[in-house]
Amino acid sequence: MSWPPDAAPPYRAFYAGRRVLVTGGLGFIGSNLARELVDLGAQVTIVDALIPDYGGNLFNIDGIADRVRVELADVRDAAAVAAAVRGQDVIFNLAGQVSHIDSMRDPHTDLDINCHAQLSLLEACRAHNPGVKVVFAGTRQVYGRPSSLPVTEDHLVKPTDVNGINKAAGEYYHLVYNNVFGLRACSLRLTNVFGPRQLLKHNRQGFIGWFIRLAIEDQEIQIYGDGSQVRDLVFVDDAADAFLRAGASDDANGRVFNVGGEEPITHRALVERLIDVCGTGRYRFVEWPPEKRAIDIGSFYADSSLIARTLGWRPAVGLHDGLQRTVAFYRAHMPQYVPAAARVGAP
Amino acid sequence: MSWPPDAAPPYRAFYAGRRVLVTGGLGFIGSNLARELVDLGAQVTIVDALIPDYGGNLFNIDGIADRVRVELADVRDAAAVAAAVRGQDVIFNLAGQVSHIDSMRDPHTDLDINCHAQLSLLEACRAHNPGVKVVFAGTRQVYGRPSSLPVTEDHLVKPTDVNGINKAAGEYYHLVYNNVFGLRACSLRLTNVFGPRQLLKHNRQGFIGWFIRLAIEDQEIQIYGDGSQVRDLVFVDDAADAFLRAGASDDANGRVFNVGGEEPITHRALVERLIDVCGTGRYRFVEWPPEKRAIDIGSFYADSSLIARTLGWRPAVGLHDGLQRTVAFYRAHMPQYVPAAARVGAP
Repeated sequence: MSWPPDAAPPYRAFYAGRRVLVTGGLGFIGSNLARELVDLGAQVTIVDALIPDYGGNLFNIDGIADRVRVELADVRDAAAVAAAVRGQDVIFNLAGQVSHIDSMRDPHTDLDINCHAQLSLLEACRAHNPGVKVVFAGTRQVYGRPSSLPVTEDHLVKPTDVNGINKAAGEYYHLVYNNVFGLRACSLRLTNVFGPRQLLKHNRQGFIGWFIRLAIEDQEIQIYGDGSQVRDLVFVDDAADAFLRAGASDDANGRVFNVGGEEPITHRALVERLIDVCGTGRYRFVEWPPEKRAIDIGSFYADSSLIARTLGWRPAVGLHDGLQRTVAFYRAHMPQYVPAAARVGAP
Repeated sequence: MSWPPDAAPPYRAFYAGRRVLVTGGLGFIGSNLARELVDLGAQVTIVDALIPDYGGNLFNIDGIADRVRVELADVRDAAAVAAAVRGQDVIFNLAGQVSHIDSMRDPHTDLDINCHAQLSLLEACRAHNPGVKVVFAGTRQVYGRPSSLPVTEDHLVKPTDVNGINKAAGEYYHLVYNNVFGLRACSLRLTNVFGPRQLLKHNRQGFIGWFIRLAIEDQEIQIYGDGSQVRDLVFVDDAADAFLRAGASDDANGRVFNVGGEEPITHRALVERLIDVCGTGRYRFVEWPPEKRAIDIGSFYADSSLIARTLGWRPAVGLHDGLQRTVAFYRAHMPQYVPAAARVGAP
């Protein structure tokens, strides 16, 4: 498709003047999405709790802070959620507990955030805003260890950890509320998303941000096992684009879509690529830590042809380009993501 | 297989002297299972909250009450659950919210019972009794509306209601704790179970008990739509036998098994059979109530060959025989299941 040179494509023009809520909007994907929405002329409200050790970071809205409304509230606060959903046209529902490791140490907190709070949001929509469109941030973690590759949306849901279970339940709620109560809702099952504004403070939210930090700090990256595991990576702007498309199209309602990258790559090759882009960092193979081994999913990459066919989405940013943009961003803003005192070699 | 005439088969002999906990043990399936366990010489503890409108009923342990320990506690009480799991050899985990309709009206309560409490039980096992065996009462509701029949365990999990979602999560927790933390756990996905000691007070826990009550009371049974929907039914003694086999075998660990009947039957034919067995009752076709239509799953019957191959289970009681035994039980004990004042035609 092509559009007049100065016109946004329809799914982007859709957002001009729309009232849009982004839960988890100070986090990694949420903030990149919020920035896009502001550019497109949407009236953006962000709900985020800034839970320590989670991905929320006020610097993530640097430059748009005066053009978004920020509610510092926890999605577990049903009253705050009910107030926030009123009057919205679209809700991008990204608030969540995303650490697999944390979910095994404190499963009840994961459940409260990824299930109870999701039900509260959907109940609030049903009661106060039944016409709203909700796009849920799902995860490839619901598939668990794949029985075949690439993984399509028809693959069995077999999570390997509590986080995967609760994220699956949160997704199913959205589909049931779509089917039974007439809300319009869908879910994007994201694979490994990377890019600017990701949490770098610790390594409990996936490997990619952590590897990027270590490479930039010229430290050693530890690769578990032989590094032959495959993953597909999505640059965050592409992930945000998938949300924009899903939010604007009723063809998405009641459905789940894989959102994955087009260049499956082994951990080892990814680390080599990253070190090459950075010009710093090194790596070493180490034994799997038992608690990570127990919930590991082996190799994974997604078949994203359903969202391509249905919503016209394809990733636009290749891995190399994405890594370059990511590294440049953190080199410019590292103190906002890793306090100086926490950096390796800090006095 | 055959055994000496006076010897129990090994999976039944296994329970002699074992310490066994049955959560939801005053309910329909739990109490029938507890009765079997007492007969087999197990030391049985029952945890049940006797929540009004749920299936717990003290009359269900009439005749064995002096041979079981009953803890009147709610599985949402994590401390009570932690105390109960200590020292047990096997836990049959049947406590749950089972009404699909109620789950759509009050999804948070369903979540608390079917997810939070399940995590509390598993966390307590992990902390205080990591060698225990846990058999979870799953449900065919996790499959939702089948895409093909009969339904095998490889069918996608696509629940149509909140109860199905939360029961799926509860089941997955058991599998993850089996795989990651070394507990031994499995799940039985039960289809429509019927027989003595089922709740008859209201019609929000499935159609079969309600139909039986109406037929016995010589009332009109309302069949939604044209009654062409197919179900498979399992007599409760057979369901209890599946639990006994799963509890005694490590071949079951980490797995899910369908537990269904061998004679799929339409609603209409089932009602005709029931009226024939009772000699009372009548039926009429009515429009689907919208709230039930929205979460209905269409026709369903299970392929139970996996549990047949793995654990040797097959249903032993046919539909006609099961209905006769069920009707005879309620005719003898109706006041214990439907208070006289609630019966149709009561003064």
